[in-house]
Amino acid sequence: MTEPRYDVIAIGNAIVDVMSPAEDSLIDELDMVRGAMTLVDADRATSLYEAMGPAREISGGSAANTLAGLSALGAQCAFIGQVANDQLGEVFAHDIRAGAIDYDTPVRIGDPPTGRCLIFVTADGQRTMNTFLGASQFLPASALDLDAVRDSKILYLEGYLWDPAEPRAAMRQAIETAKGAGRKVAFTLSDAFVIDRHGDDFQALIDAQLIDILFANHVELAALTGETDFEAGLAALAPKVPVLVVTCGERGAVALAGEERVSVSAEPVERVVDTTGAGDLFASGFLFGHVRGKDLQTCLTMGAIAAAEVISHYGARPEADLKALIGKRF
Amino acid sequence: MTEPRYDVIAIGNAIVDVMSPAEDSLIDELDMVRGAMTLVDADRATSLYEAMGPAREISGGSAANTLAGLSALGAQCAFIGQVANDQLGEVFAHDIRAGAIDYDTPVRIGDPPTGRCLIFVTADGQRTMNTFLGASQFLPASALDLDAVRDSKILYLEGYLWDPAEPRAAMRQAIETAKGAGRKVAFTLSDAFVIDRHGDDFQALIDAQLIDILFANHVELAALTGETDFEAGLAALAPKVPVLVVTCGERGAVALAGEERVSVSAEPVERVVDTTGAGDLFASGFLFGHVRGKDLQTCLTMGAIAAAEVISHYGARPEADLKALIGKRF
Repeated sequence: MTEPRYDVIAIGNAIVDVMSPAEDSLIDELDMVRGAMTLVDADRATSLYEAMGPAREISGGSAANTLAGLSALGAQCAFIGQVANDQLGEVFAHDIRAGAIDYDTPVRIGDPPTGRCLIFVTADGQRTMNTFLGASQFLPASALDLDAVRDSKILYLEGYLWDPAEPRAAMRQAIETAKGAGRKVAFTLSDAFVIDRHGDDFQALIDAQLIDILFANHVELAALTGETDFEAGLAALAPKVPVLVVTCGERGAVALAGEERVSVSAEPVERVVDTTGAGDLFASGFLFGHVRGKDLQTCLTMGAIAAAEVISHYGARPEADLKALIGKRF
Repeated sequence: MTEPRYDVIAIGNAIVDVMSPAEDSLIDELDMVRGAMTLVDADRATSLYEAMGPAREISGGSAANTLAGLSALGAQCAFIGQVANDQLGEVFAHDIRAGAIDYDTPVRIGDPPTGRCLIFVTADGQRTMNTFLGASQFLPASALDLDAVRDSKILYLEGYLWDPAEPRAAMRQAIETAKGAGRKVAFTLSDAFVIDRHGDDFQALIDAQLIDILFANHVELAALTGETDFEAGLAALAPKVPVLVVTCGERGAVALAGEERVSVSAEPVERVVDTTGAGDLFASGFLFGHVRGKDLQTCLTMGAIAAAEVISHYGARPEADLKALIGKRF
């Protein structure tokens, strides 16, 4: 068997982040849930945008951000996600390709426009996200490049995209294809709201041994297991997945694989500017270590280093030379 | 006579900056003139964008940036400039209005799209700009709100927009209107290439005493006067304009008004990240002092403070609290 063409292929939302600093009071005035990701329709997106201060646009999407980090580290990556035939779609496609990531998903013609995520960043660096999924939510199974899925060491899936029906069906087909080719499947739970709606699906995927690497934060761990105690949650979930990675914000992260358990503190950061993408980039660092055959502790530390870079500036895509940052340590 | 509604009304390019870090070698490979602003057509814009790394989009436009700074300082402002009926146009309009600047120029329907400026930022913070003017270059005189021009203390014009014929005609009409209403006209020369093409026009405006406040950098001063010696350039131009402000990058700036001459050093900056907008924000600070009746030295210092803020981060719009930065000193 020849070496697969890609280290990681991911399926995720193809969206552009619209980011602006915000006063804490604005979060309340607009009835947003501080720190959460909320799906919004076109009307709500319009009214939130009107209330938002001057913004900047930076490509986003959880799995796409993870690939941006992986590619910056030197991994070979491909992305599957759907934009519309418009300027924000061009921006997304440019940025992902400029990051040396293969991206060939056909553009969707007509309404809705390319998805966007309106992100209000408060002075403490916390981000409150409002996502209008746009064309992303209609990603059809026919848009999948199944040969590329077979030709990737890891298929990485974003829980956010499990919510709409078409991408969910596409992801099910991709999982089947990857497992049929003897590849690994990595999955991020993304947000507690996704688990509220689709926790049964995720449990079923886990029970069917279709997920090899599972990423969650401590809130999502509790939501999925129903265990409010962190250790109880780990004990409930870890035996069911070959590798479980749980991030705990500024308290670091823990990984469990079989009998092995390792943990890492958060990397020191001079100033937390914007936490958008912290989990996404943690996954970049971890998966990079994993595909390079590093031990679990090293994978976890690489995750922490990549996450620390992305929270030190605006935007969920890496800006500093991640390869150099990690090269200093390993 | 009642107090005018606006402190400053400006006519300028309505464009979005597309900014990316770049290696020095890329500037050469793409045959760009380092540090310059070059007008490009749609094809060249496309090929440069393809060669550009992952980017971020931040609203720009020289005069619009100046207003963003003025408004952040507390001045009442209005903007005139033309976008197309597309997503980048929505981004521009949102950002300028979210900055509390009145903006009512009708959107232009059809091609070309909203203008953009592809900005390659090298490690030293120098920016190399490639502007596709798009809808901006077709700003018609009919789009002017002449009542608003009459109702503004200062009409501020961007030399960049003197190049295309329609906006040039619109600006001539605006100057006539402003002067007829007894208002001041401020003008920035923008770039040496504009002077190469339209220096005679600018000389004629100056000779006709239509320009009350003239902004230039040292290169533009030399281009306009034909004097390569800085002092000779000042001596040639200063007697012809009531207020002349010349910026000299990291060497500071000088202002001359009648018999008075003052100068200022550049404000210290921890790290020059991106010089885009330095001149624009210098004009913000200077004009803010001017409309608030400050002495020449104070105006110049306010300009230096605003310029220092904008070069310490990516993008040509202010991010820190300019009012607080200036309030600390005055």
